[in-house]
Amino acid sequence: MSYRAPVKDMAFMLNDVAGLQSLVSSGLYEEATPDLIEAVLEEAGKLAENVIAPLNDGVDANPAKLKDKEVTTSPGFADAYRQWVEGGWGAIAGSGDYGGQGLPMALAAALQEIWNGASLSFGLCPILSQGAVEALSAHGTDEQREKYLTKLISGEWTGTMNLTEPQAGSDLNALKTKAVPQEDGSYLITGTKIYITYGEHDMAENIIHLVLARLPDAPAGTKGISLFLVPKYLVNEDGSLGERNDVECIGLEEKLGIHGSPTCVMAYGEKGGAKGYLIGQENRGLNCMFTMMNNARLLVGIQGVAVAERAYQHALAYAKDRKQGRKVGSQLAPGEMDPIIDHADVRRMLMSMKSLAAAARGICYANAVAIDRSHKGKSEEEKAAGKARADLLTPIAKAWSTDAGVEAASIGVQVHGGMGFIEETGAARFYRDARILPIYEGTNGIQAIDLVTRKLPLGNGEVVKAYLDEIAESVEKARASNDPDLGIVADRLEEGLSGLEEATDWMLARLKDAPNDCLAGASPYLKLFGTVAGGHYLTRAALLASGEEGPKVLARFFAENFAGPAKGLVSAAIAGESALMDRADSLLEA
Amino acid sequence: MSYRAPVKDMAFMLNDVAGLQSLVSSGLYEEATPDLIEAVLEEAGKLAENVIAPLNDGVDANPAKLKDKEVTTSPGFADAYRQWVEGGWGAIAGSGDYGGQGLPMALAAALQEIWNGASLSFGLCPILSQGAVEALSAHGTDEQREKYLTKLISGEWTGTMNLTEPQAGSDLNALKTKAVPQEDGSYLITGTKIYITYGEHDMAENIIHLVLARLPDAPAGTKGISLFLVPKYLVNEDGSLGERNDVECIGLEEKLGIHGSPTCVMAYGEKGGAKGYLIGQENRGLNCMFTMMNNARLLVGIQGVAVAERAYQHALAYAKDRKQGRKVGSQLAPGEMDPIIDHADVRRMLMSMKSLAAAARGICYANAVAIDRSHKGKSEEEKAAGKARADLLTPIAKAWSTDAGVEAASIGVQVHGGMGFIEETGAARFYRDARILPIYEGTNGIQAIDLVTRKLPLGNGEVVKAYLDEIAESVEKARASNDPDLGIVADRLEEGLSGLEEATDWMLARLKDAPNDCLAGASPYLKLFGTVAGGHYLTRAALLASGEEGPKVLARFFAENFAGPAKGLVSAAIAGESALMDRADSLLEA
Repeated sequence: MSYRAPVKDMAFMLNDVAGLQSLVSSGLYEEATPDLIEAVLEEAGKLAENVIAPLNDGVDANPAKLKDKEVTTSPGFADAYRQWVEGGWGAIAGSGDYGGQGLPMALAAALQEIWNGASLSFGLCPILSQGAVEALSAHGTDEQREKYLTKLISGEWTGTMNLTEPQAGSDLNALKTKAVPQEDGSYLITGTKIYITYGEHDMAENIIHLVLARLPDAPAGTKGISLFLVPKYLVNEDGSLGERNDVECIGLEEKLGIHGSPTCVMAYGEKGGAKGYLIGQENRGLNCMFTMMNNARLLVGIQGVAVAERAYQHALAYAKDRKQGRKVGSQLAPGEMDPIIDHADVRRMLMSMKSLAAAARGICYANAVAIDRSHKGKSEEEKAAGKARADLLTPIAKAWSTDAGVEAASIGVQVHGGMGFIEETGAARFYRDARILPIYEGTNGIQAIDLVTRKLPLGNGEVVKAYLDEIAESVEKARASNDPDLGIVADRLEEGLSGLEEATDWMLARLKDAPNDCLAGASPYLKLFGTVAGGHYLTRAALLASGEEGPKVLARFFAENFAGPAKGLVSAAIAGESALMDRADSLLEA
Repeated sequence: MSYRAPVKDMAFMLNDVAGLQSLVSSGLYEEATPDLIEAVLEEAGKLAENVIAPLNDGVDANPAKLKDKEVTTSPGFADAYRQWVEGGWGAIAGSGDYGGQGLPMALAAALQEIWNGASLSFGLCPILSQGAVEALSAHGTDEQREKYLTKLISGEWTGTMNLTEPQAGSDLNALKTKAVPQEDGSYLITGTKIYITYGEHDMAENIIHLVLARLPDAPAGTKGISLFLVPKYLVNEDGSLGERNDVECIGLEEKLGIHGSPTCVMAYGEKGGAKGYLIGQENRGLNCMFTMMNNARLLVGIQGVAVAERAYQHALAYAKDRKQGRKVGSQLAPGEMDPIIDHADVRRMLMSMKSLAAAARGICYANAVAIDRSHKGKSEEEKAAGKARADLLTPIAKAWSTDAGVEAASIGVQVHGGMGFIEETGAARFYRDARILPIYEGTNGIQAIDLVTRKLPLGNGEVVKAYLDEIAESVEKARASNDPDLGIVADRLEEGLSGLEEATDWMLARLKDAPNDCLAGASPYLKLFGTVAGGHYLTRAALLASGEEGPKVLARFFAENFAGPAKGLVSAAIAGESALMDRADSLLEA
């Protein structure tokens, strides 16, 4: 078994816990019945399990390769991608106007878990395309949408995001790529972009690059950045492909992991200028980019879920197979050994992995459902509430889930013992691959800053308070159930929640006057928040599955081992800058 | 800067915080004055910084290689090792009877931090030799010691430990390697051993393998295991090298990291039998092996310290150099950027790395000083107290420090942002290398079980209680200092300590009747223990360095961010088996 999409867990989390079906029953996305959701996930699972997952074993030995400015992806990737496109998997949540099926974004997000569970390297490609679709849908002209959207939605063409330049990482102020207006209304783009995922490859017939650049007369800083669409092949009026544009891949990064995903250095305009088209307004590129990024951040969070689940399945299979020692109270004959899954400590590791994956899934799916609500809500209020919830959860979904992915992958190595350190076993690949997730699409530190400085103040603090109230409701319901397990869940989750409330109040009180105190505690605050939020969804799952042992035990395990202990993070979140900034200078010497 | 031995920090931690100088002033190891300790560390630092550390950058591109059953180590390793031997670095703590200098084991342990800080791949080799020295010193005959010990202590010959076999990992019951007695008193060894670190290499003229095997009539299980010495080259009466023994390296593992250290599959007796010599008594091999392992466990803990320190230095240098964004209240002209170390979140990461390294250093050095006390204490009581303390601390030193090493290495990748995922940057190497540390020399899960089931009951619980009392003393002294920072330290450390006391009492009360409850919580219990213990040493450091800003700020940062939050782990440590064992079966399905 290389990977199996956990369809039952996913469908339950999506439909019931994250609340997709409450949207459906209120009349939105009426097609998205539980049956349809499950059928779609099942079908995706087949492609992922049979076609994509086996390819992932080969990405380290045969990574994406660059030769003569063309990238050949790992064996099988191009063919698997062709099957993916033919299956219509790119079009699930796309607009019906452009060949999409108009199903919920939340379903598309769940599907991303499946592709990425099969292979993070493979799954990245559709994530980038999805970002391009979002940006074009929101900010493109009718003509641009007409010209590019259908092919991007189907996946026949793929998309990229071009932000980073060699001299500028997360700081977009420092961007230098130039865009010079031409008489025909297009722009000539020149500059170098780095870390461009799938910037060049052999899986699709065209690549649509979305590129941040500056106009000649643009103001300095981020208010002088515009967004341009730069196709690899120019597109003729009739939609056919025209001449090759002046954009080339001039290097691939040698990375720690995700070797199946080409990370490109892209040169724009080495032969005079790449033809580009403005998306949205001049100097408002950042705004357009954020449209892409919010979505991409959630989907990177989903990658965290995916790798946690995959690493868990891998470790579980090993733990059932590998015999070592004897469990407490073993009934085996002398000399025989029990499978290591029977040892409490190994089981703790597996349950940690499983519950981390499930908790992160809850957060990410809830985030996705909130996005659907923001798009299709029946009133402006509902849309606004959906957007506020999605805005709040996005940094948590991204950062907490990706940290959970790294942690689960690391535990997965540990479950394998010495074998875990041997590459052939495969556990180490997840550990390597996962490590990019807390970095790209805005580092997790940036997510924490976003949460504290931009999301907590939303609606004057009412957005976060509404969410904390929702968690408090879970605590109350768990307690009211009079079930002994759920009673423990209620106690532990309440501990974590009380800590989260304390830290939230502290942050809100200081944001204006002591920003560095807030920044100093932002990361532990986000960890606290995500852990409690994850406990909330597992608690809700246990309540909704009333009587079922599995969800109850999982919720209890997570509450005892994560959500309760998270309370301890309060002291870190509210410590302030004192032991961190100037006074620590003497410590931080080379 | 590739690596700089933090001599001042190390000497202070060793001499004052871990208490080596209190041994010295009581008349033990009288040569080991503060001046000598610092001079030795300085000198070692030079070799590490100038010769060993630069080699480590090349181990991935040019790993140890096997050809025709001979292993060629990474470029420069053999020469660096020759310099290491010539410098007398192997002999520091060796017995004067065999060419050693008779200095404290604690100093040797600190030196291991330096070698491993320079290169985990390189530093492993002396760790294994040290294990062989310990085993031979304790269990060898006079003749065996005469024949092998001098060369092992000098490092001219290196040592290995041969436990694991393909069918048996941590479970020694399942060992199958055979030893057949010969008329000349030797034994013929046949069998295959895996994961043999430096089992074959080109750095020394001979390799002394210590091998666990079974006599023909041995009882089943671990009571039928004997320990044998199997030299790569047989040693003549006059000490010269004789014929090549029947032991060969037949494979190297393809690993996630430490590519400079050959991990060998060793075949004994493919041509009829390898000549071996019994160490200690027949069927008591496990006993002898534990002598090696306790020492090796501490030294692997030291590797955790070393990689945490190295990753910290690497990240620190980057954070000072890399400019991105503007800090809160930046005075820079528009368009200019601050180094990322000025951002609170980056600083938090660096302080986390530094304080994890320092806390682990405190635990490991205290463990080493306790070993010296156990060897040289002036009374049997003092020796016994030293041994008890070392026994208690060893699983914590091994597991907590290696987890800290992995965590620090992972944070180090994060500090580098996108660059961290690029292999050339070097941060990823520490992340890969460190990952073996929680696995080898007994997985960290096994350390946790050892702590809970074998160490807590020592002296009927008095050994652990004496240690917790010592921590309580730190709390009291910090509080009595009337220093505001130390007051915060006292509060947070007391929080953690109260949790540790609660969990310890819980464990001691259940060990007999509910062993699986204890095993279920063993890992979080160890984490709680180590975090509080680490806070204890940093607190003591702050107290001893009265008035100095650095140690105070470091103690406070660790107390607020680690030792206090550790209290939360109590609920995980004392959750019991209920949500983990049988009731979780339905969750753990493939």
